[in-house]
Amino acid sequence: MKKEIPYKIYLEENELPKQWLNLRAFMKNKPAPLLDPVTMQPITLDALSNVFCTELAKQELDDTTPYIDVPQEIRDFYKMYRPAPLIRAYCLEKTLGTPAKIYYKFEGNNTSGSHKLNSAIAQAYYAKEQGLKGVTTETGAGQWGTALSMACSYFGLDCKVFMVKCSYEQKPFRREVMRTYGANVTPSPSTTTAVGRKILEEFPGTSGSLGCAISEAVETAANLDGYRYALGSVLNQVLLHQSVIGLESKTALDKYGVTPDIIIGCAGGGSNLGGLIAPFMAEQLQGKAHYQFIAVEPASCPTLTRGKYAYDYCDTGKVCPLSKMYTLGSGFIPAASHSGGLRYHGMTSTLSQLYDDGLMEARAVEQTKVFEAAEYFARVEGILPAPESSHAIRVAIDEAMKCKETGEEKTILFGLTGTGYFDMVAYEKFHDGKMNDYVPTDEELAKGLAGLPNVE
Amino acid sequence: MKKEIPYKIYLEENELPKQWLNLRAFMKNKPAPLLDPVTMQPITLDALSNVFCTELAKQELDDTTPYIDVPQEIRDFYKMYRPAPLIRAYCLEKTLGTPAKIYYKFEGNNTSGSHKLNSAIAQAYYAKEQGLKGVTTETGAGQWGTALSMACSYFGLDCKVFMVKCSYEQKPFRREVMRTYGANVTPSPSTTTAVGRKILEEFPGTSGSLGCAISEAVETAANLDGYRYALGSVLNQVLLHQSVIGLESKTALDKYGVTPDIIIGCAGGGSNLGGLIAPFMAEQLQGKAHYQFIAVEPASCPTLTRGKYAYDYCDTGKVCPLSKMYTLGSGFIPAASHSGGLRYHGMTSTLSQLYDDGLMEARAVEQTKVFEAAEYFARVEGILPAPESSHAIRVAIDEAMKCKETGEEKTILFGLTGTGYFDMVAYEKFHDGKMNDYVPTDEELAKGLAGLPNVE
Repeated sequence: MKKEIPYKIYLEENELPKQWLNLRAFMKNKPAPLLDPVTMQPITLDALSNVFCTELAKQELDDTTPYIDVPQEIRDFYKMYRPAPLIRAYCLEKTLGTPAKIYYKFEGNNTSGSHKLNSAIAQAYYAKEQGLKGVTTETGAGQWGTALSMACSYFGLDCKVFMVKCSYEQKPFRREVMRTYGANVTPSPSTTTAVGRKILEEFPGTSGSLGCAISEAVETAANLDGYRYALGSVLNQVLLHQSVIGLESKTALDKYGVTPDIIIGCAGGGSNLGGLIAPFMAEQLQGKAHYQFIAVEPASCPTLTRGKYAYDYCDTGKVCPLSKMYTLGSGFIPAASHSGGLRYHGMTSTLSQLYDDGLMEARAVEQTKVFEAAEYFARVEGILPAPESSHAIRVAIDEAMKCKETGEEKTILFGLTGTGYFDMVAYEKFHDGKMNDYVPTDEELAKGLAGLPNVE
Repeated sequence: MKKEIPYKIYLEENELPKQWLNLRAFMKNKPAPLLDPVTMQPITLDALSNVFCTELAKQELDDTTPYIDVPQEIRDFYKMYRPAPLIRAYCLEKTLGTPAKIYYKFEGNNTSGSHKLNSAIAQAYYAKEQGLKGVTTETGAGQWGTALSMACSYFGLDCKVFMVKCSYEQKPFRREVMRTYGANVTPSPSTTTAVGRKILEEFPGTSGSLGCAISEAVETAANLDGYRYALGSVLNQVLLHQSVIGLESKTALDKYGVTPDIIIGCAGGGSNLGGLIAPFMAEQLQGKAHYQFIAVEPASCPTLTRGKYAYDYCDTGKVCPLSKMYTLGSGFIPAASHSGGLRYHGMTSTLSQLYDDGLMEARAVEQTKVFEAAEYFARVEGILPAPESSHAIRVAIDEAMKCKETGEEKTILFGLTGTGYFDMVAYEKFHDGKMNDYVPTDEELAKGLAGLPNVE
């Protein structure tokens, strides 16, 4: 007999993953290697170690080790806010009147408000281990910057954050949270870096983008002794750390004999989705199971659904290594939206390869539809979701409603990556009917793609 | 052998309290009865039922039933966000270098951001059961208003919130969260009520107070068909519902054979503290145990430490029943502070009686000291606390440091009532050294106390 499933499944502390899962090790078609922006050849560990801590550079390049130990100090930090609950959306199922069973992994129960802390603490730990003074980074919605500030504060490291200007202006309180954790926050593009000044000259009045902020953070780290750069998404290392999301979800579901049919996540750079699907996709790649994976992106920044699979720069200033990925071009600056965390021109190479291999689907959704789902969910499930996370809610509801039509009792798992406490300006616009549903035209996309580097 | 204590103790769903604990039933010296503001006689159930739902009025007057069943519908809602974790503050202990063992019950893991939801859902449930259309209420810091909005949305009730003007202005996003849950929010004092207009005439430019907002909400409910008033603190019914905090805490500690020596909570109207101490105080009143209880209040609104134990109005407009309580006088308007939830002139009658009987201590702390503790805690324990909650943190740290001096291994339990995501203006002032540590003079307090009604 199956055990009755509670509203919230919490694992025990000793069930916390002891190893991260390195999804690339399970892939037959490996993601293409990063290229050195100077030589245009696969980047070496040495070159990459100038950008990232050495241990993180190693993780970045490792596509063969299937499991990597989580150091005890990181596990101790995880214990402060993990395991994150896996929630059975009983109320949502009931109000939708769907026969589908809906579960979501909630990563918002920590002060950074999102899953970003899972990788932030790992990156800060390795920086500390290497004896560094501090790290630099960029932040879009502010969740990653907050997470890294918390992690650096915990290990006594300095933290310099370049915050995408439109988020900086929309979310004044985010800066104050980072300051509470001792971080230094600069709106990007700024005049403190050469690349920032160049971008401001070319695009005066720009509201910024993750791509710009990355360039500024990388330049700043390179110019300071004892600093390295840290990035909250896109990278292989980040997907590795984020595998705790999927590993915990799977352990929790396995306990109750539940197997999801559909797994849904929002996708900006891909860190949350990559982490959520990791153990499930690994099973599927080994022929042990089959799942339907859906990546959800904003229609305003449709990387997977309308981008191109090609080598591209990860940043606007072209100082970072190149990655083969679905991209809209590093020069593409998406319309200001309220999902700052999803305004990135590219997609992590692992998910790009899986998508190109037909192992994953993608959907693009418009902002108003996303906020409709967000508000509905907030009222029914009692959690105020981040706009980013609400992309996954939108499609989870859509899939559940399809089940209502067909009568299928599918099991849906989605990632609820974070909370929307700092997104009330966005909710206000939604309430006032002032949401911007701008979708880029084919011509605008062609312009971004025309700037792709010419790499085999 | 004792079990190793995890960072977070989560109870199972079936360990959620099935009954609330009615602390008054255990008291030999009962709190004095509420008085009808018209007759100045103990208020009848009939009269009280004009203000509150009948079932809640019954709970308000019941000082003999020790345990009261939690209706299944409320338990189902509790399951969405409870049990709340009891956290062992390992990191705090370590950085303080104290031999004390510190635990805190964290009530902030829900969208309202505080413990207030525990009573909000109960009050909304009974309103729904009675077939009402909606409820009116006041809110100070905004946590109670958010909680009641969420609860009303869940049961499909209308919710009208009067928000203390200084909070309304300091926390624009709070209003938007309430709006997300469909509530109607008015800054108080307002011109929509007779009592609001009167107060504005007497004190033009006032930043408002909980006492004013209560009067406006009560008047509005009285003038509308199918509405009753709901209150988030001070009342006996609220303490009853909040007993889930203490009951869960005690169950969690008992599992690991832990007995606290000191129990600490912040105290505004007293709902959190009353709920936290309920089962422990009940034991003590039965002679089964002994604990040190400490109420922490802001020095700017020192109800217990500098107030008077007397009958007083619960609201500025004097339309509510009178309660015998520690009070600064219903006309006392405290200096604007960043702990809106603690700016109330009185203290729930149960805690007032216990304090008067010497069963509980009280401490008043100044704002800067509170924020120092808040920031320290945020960095070390990874949770950004609400200013209100940080009063308890302040004294918990003080007590832990005393243990460091004496070498005593005391066990400290405190209530972390909520998160500070909507309090970043306050944190900003703290960072900028612009905190206001105003403490009322004896003359100012005497003025407030001079207005106490003349009741035996």
